[in-house]
Amino acid sequence: MMKKVIIVGGGFAGLNAAKVLGNQKGFQVTLIDSRNHHLFQPLLYQVAMAGLSPAEIARPIREMLGKYRNVRVLQGMVQSVKPDQRKVVTDFGEKDYDYLVLAGGAKHTYFGHSEWEVHAPGLKTIEQATEIRRRVLMAFEKAEREDDPADQKKHLTFVIVGGGPTGVELAGAIGEMSRFTIAREFRQIDPKLTRVILIEAGPRILPSFSKESASKATRDLEKLGVQVWTSSMVTGVNHDGVEVGEERVRAATVLWAAGVKASHLNGDLNEPKDQSGRVQVEPDLSVKSHPEIFVCGDQAAVIPKEGEKPLPGLAPVALQQGRYVAKMLIRKEKGRPVEPFSYRDKGQLATIGRSRAVAEFGKIRISGFFAWLAWLLVHIYYLTGFKNRLFVVIQWAWAYLTFDRGARLIVGKDWQFYAEPARPTVANRSDKITAQ
Amino acid sequence: MMKKVIIVGGGFAGLNAAKVLGNQKGFQVTLIDSRNHHLFQPLLYQVAMAGLSPAEIARPIREMLGKYRNVRVLQGMVQSVKPDQRKVVTDFGEKDYDYLVLAGGAKHTYFGHSEWEVHAPGLKTIEQATEIRRRVLMAFEKAEREDDPADQKKHLTFVIVGGGPTGVELAGAIGEMSRFTIAREFRQIDPKLTRVILIEAGPRILPSFSKESASKATRDLEKLGVQVWTSSMVTGVNHDGVEVGEERVRAATVLWAAGVKASHLNGDLNEPKDQSGRVQVEPDLSVKSHPEIFVCGDQAAVIPKEGEKPLPGLAPVALQQGRYVAKMLIRKEKGRPVEPFSYRDKGQLATIGRSRAVAEFGKIRISGFFAWLAWLLVHIYYLTGFKNRLFVVIQWAWAYLTFDRGARLIVGKDWQFYAEPARPTVANRSDKITAQ
Repeated sequence: MMKKVIIVGGGFAGLNAAKVLGNQKGFQVTLIDSRNHHLFQPLLYQVAMAGLSPAEIARPIREMLGKYRNVRVLQGMVQSVKPDQRKVVTDFGEKDYDYLVLAGGAKHTYFGHSEWEVHAPGLKTIEQATEIRRRVLMAFEKAEREDDPADQKKHLTFVIVGGGPTGVELAGAIGEMSRFTIAREFRQIDPKLTRVILIEAGPRILPSFSKESASKATRDLEKLGVQVWTSSMVTGVNHDGVEVGEERVRAATVLWAAGVKASHLNGDLNEPKDQSGRVQVEPDLSVKSHPEIFVCGDQAAVIPKEGEKPLPGLAPVALQQGRYVAKMLIRKEKGRPVEPFSYRDKGQLATIGRSRAVAEFGKIRISGFFAWLAWLLVHIYYLTGFKNRLFVVIQWAWAYLTFDRGARLIVGKDWQFYAEPARPTVANRSDKITAQ
Repeated sequence: MMKKVIIVGGGFAGLNAAKVLGNQKGFQVTLIDSRNHHLFQPLLYQVAMAGLSPAEIARPIREMLGKYRNVRVLQGMVQSVKPDQRKVVTDFGEKDYDYLVLAGGAKHTYFGHSEWEVHAPGLKTIEQATEIRRRVLMAFEKAEREDDPADQKKHLTFVIVGGGPTGVELAGAIGEMSRFTIAREFRQIDPKLTRVILIEAGPRILPSFSKESASKATRDLEKLGVQVWTSSMVTGVNHDGVEVGEERVRAATVLWAAGVKASHLNGDLNEPKDQSGRVQVEPDLSVKSHPEIFVCGDQAAVIPKEGEKPLPGLAPVALQQGRYVAKMLIRKEKGRPVEPFSYRDKGQLATIGRSRAVAEFGKIRISGFFAWLAWLLVHIYYLTGFKNRLFVVIQWAWAYLTFDRGARLIVGKDWQFYAEPARPTVANRSDKITAQ
């Protein structure tokens, strides 16, 4: 009997589960994703910072799985799961499964202030990355044509909320971009007057790293002109900037890197969840009430040992979990015994600007240029697909030699570029059609 | 006395005018464009067809002109011109000039049916190119998950309206993409069943080429499975497809390559215009009633000799006109005599798929692989900036060897990718903010 496996999500977990099940006898696999592409999320901030083009870190899922004849890829939205009927509900109908692998990931959360999102976009998708790129580049453009010094200062102030790796990477990149890449291209403003503020609620940035690494990262950020505000809780975000308790910072650009919430599909599983909405799974990543459902990646809270913290939301964790589930299903179908999931720690890395980073592999801690080199090699190694690797290396080599940022395009709000302001154009009006 | 020159538009004409005036004593130049980037428009269809990424054919104008200390670049909309006051009105205030160079280009026109635009986007901007890319790729995705054969057929039918070079290039690329690039990645549909119809109102495609070239192009298109309908007037476009007189073609994707209209700024010039709204200029590209205003590129109708057709809307025409105006202003200020503009014909080229083209240089006509090679060399040579050239060559070499299309990303309608359908996301909601 063929077993029908549905995989929800083509991120690191879902994609790797599908690859392991690819061309395995006895399995008929359907991978459903709302996007047509797998995204190399660790480099997404490079798209937001105009260092890479979207196509350099994303590839069609269909292409990556094309050679597996038993794998079908469907682009569509999974709206809900009906565990008792073993069905998923999509926007193109219901689909049956024997095994379900949920790898739908997470998205940003604003701690009950969803009205902040519009002023402070997060960084999870290509669209968000190009939107952030647009806002950052437009801020310099607006400052250049602004005569009022106070408004100019507002345009040149960038606030990043959240001191994890993404926040650190964004802050470092903006600091560096303003100091080197575009410094000599403006006539009226001095881009070096750019103010970049990284705000973290906890006592230090990079809480998942050691104290030593965090303080090295702080010093490196400060060298790039970034102000690091720790123990500072953002209490308000609006079109004019942010509030930090009594203090107000006027800033045209606010970026959000402060918290995630697991996929809404977890709402259909009657299981305990942690505060980020992640499902607490069994040692084999299955769900207690439904052993045919597995949850991987950012959607799951996997606690390695009683009393330990759950595994972090990193690409290697998701990748290993996806592979594990697929291998385990194969063993199960062959009647072989199954081991619980265990994570092989691949360490963690955060990069600060063009040539500095902090890295920790178990007890080994490195920082500065060699950590950056390690970061570079690890990312190139994991970047899926030879072609992307080659292109990214060339792009980086170029950027390194020339301080160039190759993808400094402001795109995305089509109507705004037309001189007849009242007239909406294709990109806008087509929303209505698609919504019909 | 410093002369203030305002250049409207950073396309081939405006950019090259600014370069020639760059670092010239006595001139203070301001270039205003609603975009931050110069676009290599001859390759825009490659972005629409997922062959190139936007950043590979676009570079920030600010960067390209950064070394000229007397040139200032401002991103903003020029709303109108006041010739009698020697001012342009922008969305960030009014600006004075001594000389005005209008190089605002053209956009698509739907011959009085602007309601067709939403169903049949044109190809002038990066946003339109990624929108076309999204529609074409989504059509295959929808066909794959569709069970009804009639609807599947609709999704796999592509109509291109307009048989000029852009229409030919789009039709050839879709034909080829369906036959080679993505052929083996689908399970339910056979992408080879794709129907591509190129509709031209005139008696033949490529009317600006010779009859021989046009019929060679037709045969090459037919080899790629494209149906070429000539003498066929589109009389209706809606969400279901197109009407050609009594006939109806059901098609999910309709692309428009059929007609252009010059910049609305021409409305502020009290001069005769041709049917595309282009201003008829003097032999030195100035405007009769205002000799300090010059019009270049797609915004101008330049008639080489009494009774001849106006010069076509090609990149070399715009480029030569921009350079001419700048050189002429320099001569004029030095009190030297001024020659009228004359166009050095660089020929014309249209490519059909991966390795065929038609090319005409004066009386020389070539077609097939060598025309394609000529097309490739010419485009690489003119592609502005060394880095872009290098990247595009690598990308092309790769695509040629592997049939790969590196940029097959569906992006741009963010909300549609979220599983909670009612919830608008950043990309949408931020429209409202920017509009504030």
